[in-house]
Amino acid sequence: MKPWDTPVDTLAKAAKAAWPRLARTTGALRDRLLERMARALLNHADDIQTANSQDLRAGEAAGLTASLLDRLALTPPRLDEAAAALRQMARLADPLGQVVGGWKRADGLEIRQVTVPLGVIGIIYEARPNVTVDAAGLCLKSGNAVVLRGGKEALLTNRALATVLRQVLVDEGLPPELLQLVGTPERSELDQMLRLRGDLDLIIPRGGKGLIEHVVTHSQVPVIETGAGVCHLYVEASIEVQVAIAIASNAKTQRPSVCNALETLLISRDAVATHLVPILAALQAAGVALRGCPETVQCFAAAIPAQESDWEAEYMDLILAVKVVADVDEAIGHIRRYGTRHSEAILTRDLKAARRFQQEVDAACVYVNASTRFTDGGQFGFGAEIGISTQKLHARGPMGLKALTSTKYLIDGDGHVRN
Amino acid sequence: MKPWDTPVDTLAKAAKAAWPRLARTTGALRDRLLERMARALLNHADDIQTANSQDLRAGEAAGLTASLLDRLALTPPRLDEAAAALRQMARLADPLGQVVGGWKRADGLEIRQVTVPLGVIGIIYEARPNVTVDAAGLCLKSGNAVVLRGGKEALLTNRALATVLRQVLVDEGLPPELLQLVGTPERSELDQMLRLRGDLDLIIPRGGKGLIEHVVTHSQVPVIETGAGVCHLYVEASIEVQVAIAIASNAKTQRPSVCNALETLLISRDAVATHLVPILAALQAAGVALRGCPETVQCFAAAIPAQESDWEAEYMDLILAVKVVADVDEAIGHIRRYGTRHSEAILTRDLKAARRFQQEVDAACVYVNASTRFTDGGQFGFGAEIGISTQKLHARGPMGLKALTSTKYLIDGDGHVRN
Repeated sequence: MKPWDTPVDTLAKAAKAAWPRLARTTGALRDRLLERMARALLNHADDIQTANSQDLRAGEAAGLTASLLDRLALTPPRLDEAAAALRQMARLADPLGQVVGGWKRADGLEIRQVTVPLGVIGIIYEARPNVTVDAAGLCLKSGNAVVLRGGKEALLTNRALATVLRQVLVDEGLPPELLQLVGTPERSELDQMLRLRGDLDLIIPRGGKGLIEHVVTHSQVPVIETGAGVCHLYVEASIEVQVAIAIASNAKTQRPSVCNALETLLISRDAVATHLVPILAALQAAGVALRGCPETVQCFAAAIPAQESDWEAEYMDLILAVKVVADVDEAIGHIRRYGTRHSEAILTRDLKAARRFQQEVDAACVYVNASTRFTDGGQFGFGAEIGISTQKLHARGPMGLKALTSTKYLIDGDGHVRN
Repeated sequence: MKPWDTPVDTLAKAAKAAWPRLARTTGALRDRLLERMARALLNHADDIQTANSQDLRAGEAAGLTASLLDRLALTPPRLDEAAAALRQMARLADPLGQVVGGWKRADGLEIRQVTVPLGVIGIIYEARPNVTVDAAGLCLKSGNAVVLRGGKEALLTNRALATVLRQVLVDEGLPPELLQLVGTPERSELDQMLRLRGDLDLIIPRGGKGLIEHVVTHSQVPVIETGAGVCHLYVEASIEVQVAIAIASNAKTQRPSVCNALETLLISRDAVATHLVPILAALQAAGVALRGCPETVQCFAAAIPAQESDWEAEYMDLILAVKVVADVDEAIGHIRRYGTRHSEAILTRDLKAARRFQQEVDAACVYVNASTRFTDGGQFGFGAEIGISTQKLHARGPMGLKALTSTKYLIDGDGHVRN
């Protein structure tokens, strides 16, 4: 259907040229498109699985780790999930054409601010081929053309997926250039992509720290950064020990590999005698390895001494750093120094401390007496999630479809001129 | 009060360290700060004017143009205006702490999204020293620390202004590092500033096209682009000739040097016989030089033939490009090719054409039967304006204080954990 070696600037320009056709579709058409894409993926499961097997064999031959091979595998249940995700997106409300504000001037001029698509979005990601489907669905649902640049390990799988999805665009009478795949693995194409200001309206990197750092540093295109989460839980003496154990366990152990999981426990000095041992014992029983400050190690011998690097660590594993602090001030100071502005929590019954913590901690989500694990588009009720923004511009925290839109002002007059 | 040769990274880090103190001030304190700054500027008018005279003498000696010297001059009435602008900002509603959304989950967890400051904002600008006052006021009002980098021509004036404003911070018990001035004129400091990701949360360039292009291309810090306006007016036959004359004249001649002024008139072919000559005659009578497509020149001999470059020109002067187009489709296509996504207008009584134009033209502000000159924070009722964004991320169109804020989620539970 297309040569896979088209340069990325050509792909992006073609996407930009095709985009106005998508921008004027109805929400109903875009939803039908996603439904058809879901069916087409299942109808072409054999082709897709054949391509994925080739990628997996090549990956084995190249000595990829077992965990990377696992991420690369698009098993039949995972393909079903990808199709189901498209169907679920189709059922969400159209993010376009929402009137988010409006007023009438004294002279009768009417101003409305309405949501519109951004244009062409570049998505840069790594091994998981389901991101190809997910990102394409989110962008098209929100009226944006998309240029996908996946990992080289998944190249054949991504080509097979893109071929199926592009054919559905054609079947719906839309230009296939609305969904572009960078079909070659060269790093130079990635760097070229970062220079396409004007052709691309936004780049979203999805993946590890190294990828995100490279994109953020080198991109001339605006980027939404979905970054690391070094999340803290600060425990005061006024919270019940059982509540503290339940929340600390949930935040650390329910799914340790995600960005909203707990990485550092801070505990108020006046809670050490009552709270420290029961909380750490419960975590240890759940398989958590503990790295503590000197006071922590003194109270709980199973904790090994923490290094400076532990306070900065996003373990994404069953490991927890633990530190005793004097009070809420020291907790806020520690979070300011080591936090990544993602999700932070205080456990307390003291209203003054709760209020100060929420006001002064600078993070996307600041919790009182709840687990940091709620920072998630699904948990927030957004239905779909592109990622969790740790930057402050445009979108902050869990991002739903709205994060893929901009606005414009529609202004209606009857011969109005400015005096 | 401070050495003026502190490197910009040191200035930015000090601003970041001081910022939390500002972030927790009340709106009342920030308003009082602005009121006191207004008074202090007038109390120190002599020092400021002495410094400005030195800058002006140096500028004359260096052979600056008369218009640049005019922009550089901070005359007593202009200083009064700068002080008045601060007082007006003080009277605007606090943009911080606004609850912009919120809901309660089925399990009782409460989520609120509230506005918060961005952090430290870098402002890069050129000759006008009043920007020093204006930008400082807008940033402080919205709870942000600010790093100012003005033009080298205004160096002594800016130092005098910053000295006065910083003393007011000290008098209010706030750290003077909340307002930093890059006190040396080296270009290397500007480029260093663009690399301060993490220390600066946002950079806003205010000035000419070259400055903005340089900042946008090289900045690793997120930028809000306030760009050029090549604004179009598309005239259909169904609009009354007198309405078309009034709006075209207002858009082109009321203030030709600004970004929301008209640069290209598009006219539907079926309106040529009735509308073209009266509109162009009125514009010519108002002193506008006309550059037309072949059909325009044929109908109106005083128009000289337009070159390709005329369709791209932001004249900012009493010059207008004029082109006959077949219909609304060709008008939309021309605007897509040559527009700068700023402000575009259609004059018509045909609802179908009006609707298509508003839906399909991709610009911050799309007008029906009104002048493009309304694209302005003051006209929109925002009270203060940082600029007009021609980008799509974070803010689009006229930007008030809200554009200098982000949000965070405050989440309140009572032992809530994720299942």
